Order: sequence, then C-alpha cells, then structure tokens
Amino acid sequence: MSDQPSLPAGFSAAGIHCGIKSDPSVFDLCLFVSDRAASLAGVFTQNKVCGAPVKLSRQRAPRATGRAVVINSGNANACTGERGDADAAWMTEQTAAALGCDAEDVVVCSTGIIGHFLPRPALQTGIAAIASQLAETPKAFNAAARGMMTTDTFAKQTTRSLDVGGTRVRFSAAAKGAAMIGPNMATMLSVVMTDAALSPEDADAMLRHSVDRSFNCISVEGHTSTSDTVFLFANGAAGHADLNDESRAALQTAIDDVTMEMAQAIIRDAEGADHFVTIDVEGARTRDEAHCIAKAIADGALVKTAITGADPNWGRIVSAAGYSGVEMAEDEISLLINEVLIYEAGAPTVYDEAGLSQSMRDNRDVSIKLRLTHGDASVRFWTSDLTAEYVRLNSEYTT
Amino acid sequence: MSDQPSLPAGFSAAGIHCGIKSDPSVFDLCLFVSDRAASLAGVFTQNKVCGAPVKLSRQRAPRATGRAVVINSGNANACTGERGDADAAWMTEQTAAALGCDAEDVVVCSTGIIGHFLPRPALQTGIAAIASQLAETPKAFNAAARGMMTTDTFAKQTTRSLDVGGTRVRFSAAAKGAAMIGPNMATMLSVVMTDAALSPEDADAMLRHSVDRSFNCISVEGHTSTSDTVFLFANGAAGHADLNDESRAALQTAIDDVTMEMAQAIIRDAEGADHFVTIDVEGARTRDEAHCIAKAIADGALVKTAITGADPNWGRIVSAAGYSGVEMAEDEISLLINEVLIYEAGAPTVYDEAGLSQSMRDNRDVSIKLRLTHGDASVRFWTSDLTAEYVRLNSEYTT
Repeated sequence: MSDQPSLPAGFSAAGIHCGIKSDPSVFDLCLFVSDRAASLAGVFTQNKVCGAPVKLSRQRAPRATGRAVVINSGNANACTGERGDADAAWMTEQTAAALGCDAEDVVVCSTGIIGHFLPRPALQTGIAAIASQLAETPKAFNAAARGMMTTDTFAKQTTRSLDVGGTRVRFSAAAKGAAMIGPNMATMLSVVMTDAALSPEDADAMLRHSVDRSFNCISVEGHTSTSDTVFLFANGAAGHADLNDESRAALQTAIDDVTMEMAQAIIRDAEGADHFVTIDVEGARTRDEAHCIAKAIADGALVKTAITGADPNWGRIVSAAGYSGVEMAEDEISLLINEVLIYEAGAPTVYDEAGLSQSMRDNRDVSIKLRLTHGDASVRFWTSDLTAEYVRLNSEYTT
Repeated sequence: MSDQPSLPAGFSAAGIHCGIKSDPSVFDLCLFVSDRAASLAGVFTQNKVCGAPVKLSRQRAPRATGRAVVINSGNANACTGERGDADAAWMTEQTAAALGCDAEDVVVCSTGIIGHFLPRPALQTGIAAIASQLAETPKAFNAAARGMMTTDTFAKQTTRSLDVGGTRVRFSAAAKGAAMIGPNMATMLSVVMTDAALSPEDADAMLRHSVDRSFNCISVEGHTSTSDTVFLFANGAAGHADLNDESRAALQTAIDDVTMEMAQAIIRDAEGADHFVTIDVEGARTRDEAHCIAKAIADGALVKTAITGADPNWGRIVSAAGYSGVEMAEDEISLLINEVLIYEAGAPTVYDEAGLSQSMRDNRDVSIKLRLTHGDASVRFWTSDLTAEYVRLNSEYTT
C-alpha cells in the first residue's frame, strides 16, 4: 500500500536533540520546510484551554505563503501565559531567520509537559543547528518524525503517490500521539506535505474533510488535549497539469489515506492497549449521528474493559449507543463483533460465544459493527481498549 | 446527621430471596408499600435504550394514587422486547393482586443481567410471599434495601426527620448502585418515601430539583444505564398542617439531603475505587455550565488515574475543563486540590507538592475545586478514581 516514507518534491526536513529532554540520545526538535511558498492549512484542538503555539499558528493558517513548521517535544508551552505566547512567536522568528524567510510564514507546535517555560538558550542553538541539517532524504524525514515523539514507541510516517495528468504527485505525513500521560500532554500532532498545487482554500477544505475522517475518528480516552494540531503544506513542486474533478478527487483520496494511516498508527501505539478496535456505525440518519454513536462506544470504559477481557458484551455496546443522545429504539439496532451477528433487531442471537471470545483473545484487531435502520449514513472510528497497564502508566507517574 | 434508617408513617417494606439469583442467601426481590394513596413522582434514565420497567413506570408517574414499587435484582428485564414489556406489566398485576390495589398504582424496577427473560414462576411465588412479610420496622426496611442490591457491597439507606408546624415528618430513602459490571447492568435505583403531604406536581418538581443535585451529580465511568430510576412516594400520613413557604423549603432541603446521601453512598461503593472525589466548580455563568465542567473532570480517565496515583496534576484537570465545551480562558481559571491553591488565574503556584501528594495518598477523600471568574453559579459533583482493580473487575468477567 504505502511506499517507503519519503518527502514530496520541494520539501526538506530534519530532527535533532537540542536539550529540552534530558536524554541526549532522544530527539526533541524537528523542522519541515518547503523550498517555495506553499498553501498552508491547519486544523487545531477544540479545547478552550490551548497552548501558545496553537494560538499563534491559528492566526497564520490558511495562507498562500507557508514555508515551514518548527516543532519541539518535551515541553508543550501550554498554560504558560504571556511569556509562552512570546516564546512561540520567538521560535518562528528564530526559524525564519535561519531559513531567510518571513516569520509570518512559519508555524509552530510544542508537545510535552505543560505549565513549564521553554528553554530559549537550548532552542536558539538548536534552531540554528537544525536549519543546517535540512535534507530531502528518507533518513531526514524519519529524523524529523522522531523529533516530534513524546511517549510514542515508534515514529509515524507515510507516503502516497498518484498520477495527476501524467505527473507523479506525492502526499507524505508524519504524526505523533499515544494518549496523554503524566503532566505531559502527549498531544496529537501531524504534518502533511504534498507537492501538488492547491489553493489555500482548497488545502483548507481538503484537510478538514480528511481530519473529519481520520484524526476526528480516533479516541484513546476521549481527552482532547491543549495542543492538537494538523498542518497541510501544498507547494506545487510536482508541476502537474491543472486539476480537474477526477484528479481533485484522487488528491482528496490520497490525503484521506495518509491521514487515516497516521490516525490508526496513533491508536496502534496507544498506551497499554491490548486491542486495536475498529468501530463501524452504519445505517444512521446522518454522519454526525453515526459519529456521535461511534464516539460514545469508543469512549465507554465498560466497552473498553469488555474488549480487554475478550468479552463479546453486546449489552455494554448497545447501552453506550443508547446514551449517545441519538434517537433510537432497540429493534432498530443490530450488532456484529468480528463479523459475527450477536444482536439482531433488538434481540440477542444464538452464536458461538466461546469461539467469538477466543477470536477476541487471539487477535489484536477487533471489529465492532453497529447497524441501524435509520438511513444511509455511516462512519468508521478507531479506538483502543482499557487495560490495567494503561491505569498503571497513567497513575504511577507523579509530579 | 441521619437517624437510624426507618420508614415514614404509613409505609411498609420487605425483602426476600425468590430465586432469580442462584445463591439462596442473597435477596433478589423487594417491595415498598404505602398504606394509602401517595403522590408518586419518578425520574428515569435518559438512555434511549431503556428497560421494560422504565417504559412502563414512566407512564404511571407522576400520579396521585401511587401505592407500591416492586423491585427485583439479578435480571434487568432490558432488551427483552414485547415479552419483557408483558413481564413488567405482569409484575405490577401480581403485586396489585397481593396488595388488593389497582395495578396502575404500582410501579416496577428490575436490575441485573440484560437480555434475559424474567423467571415468572419464581416471581409469582416470590411476590405472594413478600406481600405477606411487609412490615414497618427498620429490619424490614433494611431487608428491602438488600433486595435491590447487585454488586453493591453495602445496603444504602437513610432517614431524615423534620418538624412541620409541630408535626414530625420523615423522609427515607434506599438506593443501589456501584457502577456497571459484566453483562449485568448494575443500575442506579432509589426509592424515596415521605409521610409529608405533597401534590403529585409538587412531588415531581421537588424530586427533579433533588435529582439534579444528587444522582445527576455523580459519575463512576459516565455510563448511563438502561434502567436508572428514582421514585418519590409522599403519602401524607404524618398529618401535618398545610405547607407554607418555610416548611416547603424545609421539605425540599430534607429530600435534597437524603438523595445526596444516597448518591454519595453509591460513589463510596464504586467498584475498585481508592478515592472518593468531591468536585466543586464555582464562579460559573450558569449551573448548567458548572455541571458540564464538573462532569468533564469527573469522567476524565486521565484525571481519575492521576488521583489514583495521588498526583496533584492540574494540567489534566484544567485541560478537561477546557474540553468541556464551556467558553473559558486560562487566566479565568484557578484550581485547588484539598484546599491547596495549585493553579491561580492561569499560572501554576509554588506549593508543597510532596505534602499535597502525601495527603492524597493518606486520605480516601479528595477535594477538587475549580474557580472561574464568570459569575455566581456553582455545582458540587462526586466521582471515584480509576484503578487497575476497576479494570480487572470489568474485564475479567466474561459471558
């Protein structure tokens, strides 16, 4: 499916250790750069309490002249007041100076501990150093993906290429996220890059479409962080022909694919998780209603613990759907787990419970399919289960 | 504060084992009866998927001629279709026949496993037997409270008495609930009884006022069950003078007190919990906004695990408030844990972190106080923490 992760034409990247984290072998700074003005779109956390980088970057996207995003891990620069705002702006100024561009064309993300001020000396040295290490290689792309990790156990990157009127166009993305931990806000961040030519408006619309189907369809514990950010840079370096409806649709599919792959990678890396759960809600009146039901199921502690226990517990799943707020009656609901129909039109079926439970125990991937009789809308959502290990990870860390 | 739990004048109760549960030493049926027509009010689950007893009882409250509530545990009679509806109606008919009253004046609750049909033979014998054991004694009240238990580890009962124009009036309540477990829906149920004279309209309004401040202000894991029900019976047997504003307010306070005590008892009995957490949100624009913020904090897995770990983690709490959907800015937020100010107007304070963490480790009760600068509205909310034991209890049970 996916190529070896590489950067689209006109993009370079780098990742280094600059000194925010104590372990010198762990990267804590990365930079993604377009060599020319790119259409830049951003989608940000809906948390009312958001980090300084979110406040700043929100003002700078969408724009036609995006050049770079600088990201540090180990410190979220959130809940840091006016000094935090100044630090975020300063990071973009330092980056712009190193790149020889306008600070307004640089956006910024920070992820890690909240409530601590950024160490300017480490960043000043680091930004100068990282700008000199920018490269277009897969290795540089991987280093950059590592530079944004917090509690992630693996770097998350992907690439898709497609043909637009005879020209090869690439979409590449890096992401980080593995739930929230400690006073660290292990936020979800992603940078999507393409050498396709998109107007800022198109970039914005296409990114929002994708995010609705990817990063807005995952949940580890339902906690919306202060720093969630997704950027799309589209720099046109591929030099393809003008877009038509067909190629535009192909580009949308490509960005949907890379963002969904990144979203799923975050869930696959969810802290302490034993199972990767795909929730399909079908036959809903609207996509919003389907999403609302899927999220209620995904966030249900009783659903998650049942999956941990390999228990095909339709009562907990149907009940979670029932409290989602969406109007429904029992006899409008059917439920499949791992493609086995266990609840049909409001009544439990006769099925091989032991066999289904064994399949849940043997496989990391679990499929939950809730079928309604309301309409044609559907949604696909991904989540993890809830294990004692998750509780241990998130309770044993103390300030 | 509370008297020895006893029944108000004109009420009798009983609890027995009738054979729904396998262990003959465990009660599974109870009955609360008023010897005269009582104003009856009910508040029910908002889950769209609700049990047959909820569907039936909802049609019968409020009413002026309530006589009894029959409750079985061990089987929720939920997701049981038309046969379940018929069984719920049949339970009230059997009870009415045994009491010599109209079935319309009897309401019903069932709690336990969902998706199984009630065993009519056991219930038929049981209802005849329990009607013959009705008594006005504290022992009978306790037996009835035990008859509604599922995974509860203790019976939950309370009594308050007050003076209305020289006449002693009593409010008594029993409740059950300890989170949801297994395919059992360990629903929250409560029966409130008073010998005060209230019109059905007053009973309904006063019950809703109380429920908003008690059972709607608790959360173990945010799972709204299919069967949650609270009833108020007011039979006027005390024979007090007509109510005035003052005595009416005193009655409201009494019902608030008994429902809050029952709500807190449910949280104290929450499965696997190490901490009992009181969340105060103050200075909000409206009570709804305060409630919304408190619930987001209470349901936050990261907040709960931080408390399990005795970690005064303001980042997780402030962030949960931020994603509640209520408009707020960092500098409008202050936070106290166990009365220690740890976050003030958007900035962390300097405080004794080790000492505060030790106090959270040493005490079962934890207080979280979030202060806003928006207005005068406040809410008090109760929750439990999230422990590995909760995950174990809820994942090791398999169907």
